[in-house]
Amino acid sequence: MSLLANTPKPPYYAVIFTSIRTEGDNGYGETANRMAELAEQQPGYLGAESAREEVGITVSYWTDLESIKNWKANTEHLEAQKTGRKLWYESFKVRISKVERDYGI
Amino acid sequence: MSLLANTPKPPYYAVIFTSIRTEGDNGYGETANRMAELAEQQPGYLGAESAREEVGITVSYWTDLESIKNWKANTEHLEAQKTGRKLWYESFKVRISKVERDYGI
Repeated sequence: MSLLANTPKPPYYAVIFTSIRTEGDNGYGETANRMAELAEQQPGYLGAESAREEVGITVSYWTDLESIKNWKANTEHLEAQKTGRKLWYESFKVRISKVERDYGI
Repeated sequence: MSLLANTPKPPYYAVIFTSIRTEGDNGYGETANRMAELAEQQPGYLGAESAREEVGITVSYWTDLESIKNWKANTEHLEAQKTGRKLWYESFKVRISKVERDYGI
């Protein structure tokens, strides 16, 4: 598996999730792994990239807005989002964007 | 300064730059800092977020496509891009996307 997401020719969608964590794990690691695994099983999922230093950044890629909306409404994911707001994140931002062009090596 | 970019109400643009580095610094750190500083001075720049573990992710935010195009064509930046392709990156991907919606805490 490549570490960079192997996305198709644009257009497709990117969900840019950036966050600052609170102190301590508090079950975060386990849920983060489970959410990554669960996201992969969703219709319309194209891939994801993730890194954390001071700021955590996860970008997930999707075929369309409907798939993003369905993933946001997933029952297990809703539970994780609730705990995220309450416990895991000092602050976060979710940006829904449409990828219009890409290139690379 | 907040660690998360303080972007305005959408729409605006996000440049998602993901990369795998080659081994060794080879002048990368110094140039990366200089490019971050230089980007901040460009018209249309709105902010950026950055983290690296196995994958490096830098997301920079811009008012419009013209500003992104001008930054890509900046002379000093062009030189850095050339060295990046030759020396610093095993692989990379640049995705130009339009942020349609955002939320957070």
